[in-house]
Amino acid sequence: MADDPRPSVGIIGASGYTGSELVRLLCAHPGVSLDFITSESHRGRLLSDVHPHLKGIFDLELSSAEDLGHHEPNLVFLALPHGVSMEFVKGYGCNGFKIIDLSGDFRLRSGDQYGRWYGKRHLCPEMLGDATYGLPEVYRGEIVNSRLVANPGCYPTSVVLALAPLLSGEIIEMDCIIVDSKSGVTGAGAKTRPVTHFPSANEDFKAYSLTDHRHTPEMEQALGEIADREIDIQFTPHLTPLSRGIQTSVYCRAADGITQKDLEEAYDALYGGERFIRVRDRPPSVRDVRGSNFCDVHVRLDERTGNVIALSAIDNLVKGASGQAIQNMNIMLGFDEATGLGAPPLSP
Amino acid sequence: MADDPRPSVGIIGASGYTGSELVRLLCAHPGVSLDFITSESHRGRLLSDVHPHLKGIFDLELSSAEDLGHHEPNLVFLALPHGVSMEFVKGYGCNGFKIIDLSGDFRLRSGDQYGRWYGKRHLCPEMLGDATYGLPEVYRGEIVNSRLVANPGCYPTSVVLALAPLLSGEIIEMDCIIVDSKSGVTGAGAKTRPVTHFPSANEDFKAYSLTDHRHTPEMEQALGEIADREIDIQFTPHLTPLSRGIQTSVYCRAADGITQKDLEEAYDALYGGERFIRVRDRPPSVRDVRGSNFCDVHVRLDERTGNVIALSAIDNLVKGASGQAIQNMNIMLGFDEATGLGAPPLSP
Amino acid sequence: MADDPRPSVGIIGASGYTGSELVRLLCAHPGVSLDFITSESHRGRLLSDVHPHLKGIFDLELSSAEDLGHHEPNLVFLALPHGVSMEFVKGYGCNGFKIIDLSGDFRLRSGDQYGRWYGKRHLCPEMLGDATYGLPEVYRGEIVNSRLVANPGCYPTSVVLALAPLLSGEIIEMDCIIVDSKSGVTGAGAKTRPVTHFPSANEDFKAYSLTDHRHTPEMEQALGEIADREIDIQFTPHLTPLSRGIQTSVYCRAADGITQKDLEEAYDALYGGERFIRVRDRPPSVRDVRGSNFCDVHVRLDERTGNVIALSAIDNLVKGASGQAIQNMNIMLGFDEATGLGAPPLSP
Amino acid sequence: MADDPRPSVGIIGASGYTGSELVRLLCAHPGVSLDFITSESHRGRLLSDVHPHLKGIFDLELSSAEDLGHHEPNLVFLALPHGVSMEFVKGYGCNGFKIIDLSGDFRLRSGDQYGRWYGKRHLCPEMLGDATYGLPEVYRGEIVNSRLVANPGCYPTSVVLALAPLLSGEIIEMDCIIVDSKSGVTGAGAKTRPVTHFPSANEDFKAYSLTDHRHTPEMEQALGEIADREIDIQFTPHLTPLSRGIQTSVYCRAADGITQKDLEEAYDALYGGERFIRVRDRPPSVRDVRGSNFCDVHVRLDERTGNVIALSAIDNLVKGASGQAIQNMNIMLGFDEATGLGAPPLSP
Repeated sequence: MADDPRPSVGIIGASGYTGSELVRLLCAHPGVSLDFITSESHRGRLLSDVHPHLKGIFDLELSSAEDLGHHEPNLVFLALPHGVSMEFVKGYGCNGFKIIDLSGDFRLRSGDQYGRWYGKRHLCPEMLGDATYGLPEVYRGEIVNSRLVANPGCYPTSVVLALAPLLSGEIIEMDCIIVDSKSGVTGAGAKTRPVTHFPSANEDFKAYSLTDHRHTPEMEQALGEIADREIDIQFTPHLTPLSRGIQTSVYCRAADGITQKDLEEAYDALYGGERFIRVRDRPPSVRDVRGSNFCDVHVRLDERTGNVIALSAIDNLVKGASGQAIQNMNIMLGFDEATGLGAPPLSP
Repeated sequence: MADDPRPSVGIIGASGYTGSELVRLLCAHPGVSLDFITSESHRGRLLSDVHPHLKGIFDLELSSAEDLGHHEPNLVFLALPHGVSMEFVKGYGCNGFKIIDLSGDFRLRSGDQYGRWYGKRHLCPEMLGDATYGLPEVYRGEIVNSRLVANPGCYPTSVVLALAPLLSGEIIEMDCIIVDSKSGVTGAGAKTRPVTHFPSANEDFKAYSLTDHRHTPEMEQALGEIADREIDIQFTPHLTPLSRGIQTSVYCRAADGITQKDLEEAYDALYGGERFIRVRDRPPSVRDVRGSNFCDVHVRLDERTGNVIALSAIDNLVKGASGQAIQNMNIMLGFDEATGLGAPPLSP
Repeated sequence: MADDPRPSVGIIGASGYTGSELVRLLCAHPGVSLDFITSESHRGRLLSDVHPHLKGIFDLELSSAEDLGHHEPNLVFLALPHGVSMEFVKGYGCNGFKIIDLSGDFRLRSGDQYGRWYGKRHLCPEMLGDATYGLPEVYRGEIVNSRLVANPGCYPTSVVLALAPLLSGEIIEMDCIIVDSKSGVTGAGAKTRPVTHFPSANEDFKAYSLTDHRHTPEMEQALGEIADREIDIQFTPHLTPLSRGIQTSVYCRAADGITQKDLEEAYDALYGGERFIRVRDRPPSVRDVRGSNFCDVHVRLDERTGNVIALSAIDNLVKGASGQAIQNMNIMLGFDEATGLGAPPLSP
Repeated sequence: MADDPRPSVGIIGASGYTGSELVRLLCAHPGVSLDFITSESHRGRLLSDVHPHLKGIFDLELSSAEDLGHHEPNLVFLALPHGVSMEFVKGYGCNGFKIIDLSGDFRLRSGDQYGRWYGKRHLCPEMLGDATYGLPEVYRGEIVNSRLVANPGCYPTSVVLALAPLLSGEIIEMDCIIVDSKSGVTGAGAKTRPVTHFPSANEDFKAYSLTDHRHTPEMEQALGEIADREIDIQFTPHLTPLSRGIQTSVYCRAADGITQKDLEEAYDALYGGERFIRVRDRPPSVRDVRGSNFCDVHVRLDERTGNVIALSAIDNLVKGASGQAIQNMNIMLGFDEATGLGAPPLSP
């Protein structure tokens, strides 16, 4: 690798789903060299023993984050649980390399908020101001020069992209926004738990984390910054018996005089030039985005009730995590934003 | 059967899912004799050829509705598509026997409403006033003496039972009620369609029928009668990759000063004596009601936002269709309301 | 319960799938009283907290097996892991009550065999001779008077019932029998493991335990006793992405001159009077037996190749475990064999 | 396209699953230009209306096969039902362009065989001798110069690749080979049928087409050519509740003296240089190959019984259809064989 002229990247915590998905996508990326991957629990094993689908494609050995000093990466992905990410950032800083953190540790601007929703004290609240929220469609300008990007959560990606076009101008009333999201089971991670045991999750459907899901303040923060006012939402996640995908349905009231055409124009205006957002003429479907970095959206005015329904669908592991992380990397390292992310969705 | 002293019942249209589910449940009912089953498309075949799980349990031959004259039923279930049911009722009336209609044809009180949402003229609007809406927990008193019961739709059952306790007294503000429902694929019936082809529905999740689902006016009618005022709701159904089950999440604003305890008391007050409603202390799950006539409900106040979330789960083919029909039959024929409906849910 | 004249039964180990399934089925049994249920890990909790689908149906508190002395059961079901069952039997014997053991501990007649396949020494090999193999269609006569019934494994039930009619007379050549079985995920139990994590098992299919599955000697023992000669089989289990059900395909060579009619007559001869075996005219389907105690079988001669294909489908938790246990209980306590087991399958 | 120097290809029949999968894979292929796609039933519509996951990626209009004259393709894929393919080939020949036919019409070398298994007379039996069976790992040398390649069926691909290494030398006894295959539901195509209705296929598992599946003679032909003797197999397909994937388990008797090491050496010898075959040390899993052109295989000797178990897993739409077609195209057009097929599997 010494003579590979491409930027060098590494993944800290490659044994989970977002880690293996980063590897899958980086294998298709022509511009960077994935030089190391770590896992404390599986160090010394081949990645393809932990993720056997990658056999013959990427068989590198998992090392420890402590071996980071042997590498000179340009950029590091943190695919770690929240709490562990901030330990890493506090320890290593972003001096020698840029960081894209896929956990929730650097998404909120306030350490107090973090403490309230995550139930633990932030280890380096002074760094929160330096972190950029890595939703390119909204924060692209800031991501370019950022050294620490907080990659958005899967639910927030689906919610903010569904709603963003409605938050400028006088399109909706912003004081009563209801968000009903449904996620596939990979959203709960690779760790086994009773609720994600196959016979528990299969042929079941249920809401969970009513009123206190950790992604709530992150959504409200991004929506509030877009709207330039405080936004409260009612967010309810649901567990859906499929592996990948989030579908979100948002409900709010239309402002007086708004028409279906107004809504559509708002979406076209904001998303017309976006590579990964497809404004569709029917309710989007998680099947149509599986394996891809697309976010499909659709908006509808119900003239009978005066409500607006905004819908989105993403693959929670791609646009909701690792694909978006690579989109951010492309921006941070100066690549075309879609590099390595062009593979069509896998359907059916 | 001539010497069977039990009331005689028949099923018109037994080849679909609600038909076979009626048979499954009636097989376990000690008080009635299921004497005939019809299917125009499969007449002459054994029921157990069409529904092979019933082999050895109920192998009666499917006859034609035209053979009804050979029988003297006390009660007839209509498991027919909407439009076809009203033809039958118009033709046969309810003179000799009581009718429980599982279609949408007699649920709305107004023929005009019917025309608007179902896209066809009602054939016997004068009979709409005689029909009783068969949701026992709300209309039990009227069902007892009714000769024509319109069995509620699956979505309306889940929605009305989730919301009913909130509609008396000053518990919620009723002008903005959002209903987000998710249904398993049997809700779309036994007829094959591209959207219910296995590779289409599997590993997918999507909304459909935004703003115009036919169950909407039926819900608004029942909710309005309970609240004694006009109620508009925003209803969005979603297709979920499982066979049986509906989960509904309802969102509305709490009235001033309402507490979580007030909400729980309202549910206990209305449902404390109900045999098929279980008020739960966590979000209900379709797995916990599968195969049973239970409707599990849960209510939660979000103190942060001032919103109320009301959740329900049913088996769409049982409490959402055939089980509720038998509950209605029990009331109409004087049985204990739970007769034949006591089998525990099948989980996992 | 002191004045309940019905036989008293208890379940040791009621927190797993076979335990909750025993409760589900015993709730529908008119002839016995389920007086206690135990779970060491959940003692003190209500059963319906551990298995929420049973709320309002059976809310008894889980006690400890140590409290057994407070009860005077006529019969006890052991729904324990192998290894733990034999500890219980060694400790309590079958003096005061009959035992139906759902584990593998008393299925093999030889302690040596047990040691070889289960990897541990049997604690009470002297009791193996007293145990009866509880497959009623084969061992009914011995079950009647048995005090210790070893309930068959799920795979062996599906395999032995598929093959049994072929083992008498000169129907097949018995020296090369291939058994390819496919099981739903509840077959792996309620304990979470990586392989049964939803995203692992969903949309996957694979073989496992090639050449060494513990059910192999149990099948060979039963098949050998039926055939009255030694039988070796090649058994391969596969994990299938559904919750309940086992489908087994057995392959062997037809003896010279055997016809399709001969095969069908053999099945009718053995199974014509059986309540839970349905000889079908097409390949059986796990959907058609779900939730029921049925075993559906089908046999076919391939005239082109001279091979016989014998197929079966069961619900692994019912005929493959708890339903068969109740069938055994009915025989042991003198009830009609189908008591409490008459509910139709749940399909779809 | 006039000035695109790359070879031009087209797809006849692009509205089904193999058609859309060809498009998905060709989008990632740098060396050819996909210039036309046809569908008689959807002509005039955009491909992305029929396959909405392709919106924004490949939005070409579906034309008619009759418009073929407007193009000068180098190679045409036929993704047509059997029977229709031979009409096309009879009509157009392979004069101007090479053909890869994904149907079964040109796989058998004998028109009589075709008639017997497909139930219709072959329209151009004289062309059967010109067709090459497109399984590169076996027939690579002939594919290079072929003008008409018959792309193998999905089951045959999984079976022949599992078995091929055992057919040279004296490794197994070839007179009793049992093949038990399990396929996801896309194997049945995009056309709706009762058996593939979601509630029918979901939570079900069953065998079908006992003794008469059309892929049988194709397997026997390829296996026989590899072994250089006549081979009969017992083939049983099963329908599995997942969208993509075939798992095959093959059983046969080891020749005297064969060891596990001998088996492994045979697989390494034949497959050591193959790009798309991964010889694994455990039973392969369809999840590990999903979306990819890999065929994972594993072989095991059961010393206790003397049998050999050979297992394989493929994605039926990729290595079992469209991916293999592109592998064939690469060989026929002189590309590196893996061009455009390098994307890692999608797991979970």
